[in-house]
Amino acid sequence: MFLSLDGIDGVGKSTQMRLLTDWLAAQGRRVVTCRDPGSTPLGESLRELLLHSGEDRPIGARAEMLMYMAARAQLVDDVIRPALEDDAVVVSDRYLLANLVYQAHAGGLSRDAVAQVGAVAVDGVVPDRVFLLDLDPDVADRRRGREPDRMESRGADYRQRLRTGFLAEAQNDPRRVTVIDAANSVAAIHASIIRVAAEDLRRADLKTDRK
Amino acid sequence: MFLSLDGIDGVGKSTQMRLLTDWLAAQGRRVVTCRDPGSTPLGESLRELLLHSGEDRPIGARAEMLMYMAARAQLVDDVIRPALEDDAVVVSDRYLLANLVYQAHAGGLSRDAVAQVGAVAVDGVVPDRVFLLDLDPDVADRRRGREPDRMESRGADYRQRLRTGFLAEAQNDPRRVTVIDAANSVAAIHASIIRVAAEDLRRADLKTDRK
Repeated sequence: MFLSLDGIDGVGKSTQMRLLTDWLAAQGRRVVTCRDPGSTPLGESLRELLLHSGEDRPIGARAEMLMYMAARAQLVDDVIRPALEDDAVVVSDRYLLANLVYQAHAGGLSRDAVAQVGAVAVDGVVPDRVFLLDLDPDVADRRRGREPDRMESRGADYRQRLRTGFLAEAQNDPRRVTVIDAANSVAAIHASIIRVAAEDLRRADLKTDRK
Repeated sequence: MFLSLDGIDGVGKSTQMRLLTDWLAAQGRRVVTCRDPGSTPLGESLRELLLHSGEDRPIGARAEMLMYMAARAQLVDDVIRPALEDDAVVVSDRYLLANLVYQAHAGGLSRDAVAQVGAVAVDGVVPDRVFLLDLDPDVADRRRGREPDRMESRGADYRQRLRTGFLAEAQNDPRRVTVIDAANSVAAIHASIIRVAAEDLRRADLKTDRK
């Protein structure tokens, strides 16, 4: 079983990831967590390059997208696929969906191009369930403790495109992507997530038993 | 005008690249040279990661391919496209062809997958002429001053797959990829290369004049 959490910054992914992981462990599941990009030596090096290089010479949109994909390919090979083969539940902080939204919907690359490269990178390893934490970007910003100022007003448009992109992707794939209203309380969000996760686990266990 | 040189290691690419560049300069052309991967800060960082990381944890085939593609996308955006728009002649030490051969023909990835990702990475910027320096891998090894030993006999198979891969790609695209017999003398190889390059430049100049 492969679960991922996604959404714009400030929606509470880290908190919900911790709560979900604890709940899974309490159910007696072996849990492997990861973050994308990251969680492998190569992935962390690429993450470092993505975050800290290119200040004088910005990284181009296609190079950026391809580096996320390279980190993800290594994450699949070294962490996710082995964990799934070992019957662990994998929970990933972000995955391919973020690339589609940040680089295509909001970043100007063709969605088909990102999806095609994505299919090569993940090599069939896609989440059984994506929890999309949805929240108004201004609310997300206030939660992170800063008011959007004038300089950020262009940034607000961008964050709005991110939200719209995430919701459009969810609508394209409603059986796999579950939209969670992140304006609710931490406890209510967690309850929504585990209700879906419990049902997914029950179905997966039935399938395993039938084999 | 965008030219690239490719082929297995030891066929004399560096020497021919230098001679070709000198010849182009002597013709009064502005020349921009690059190596792929490399020639941008990001590309050199990725090259470094490709060559030196992963000794304890090898880089997977897809991640490796995607990193080459990321380096190439940045090379296109920061070096090759600006140079071409500025009417320089670009000469690249390796390009997309090497990825198709090393990662698909000899590396086990699907050729279509590598070609699809490649199309996204290069974004329409492909060489007008690829010079493929072709040589028997054993001869190439001897030129580099080492006899293949028993340990390298598997390596010999691999290098043979590389050669076959390069030749297959040349056969698929004979109007763009020119196979050069690298068993000839340095001077004879150079003569073959500039004969084709001179004709390519003449045609390109005619096209420009007509505009």
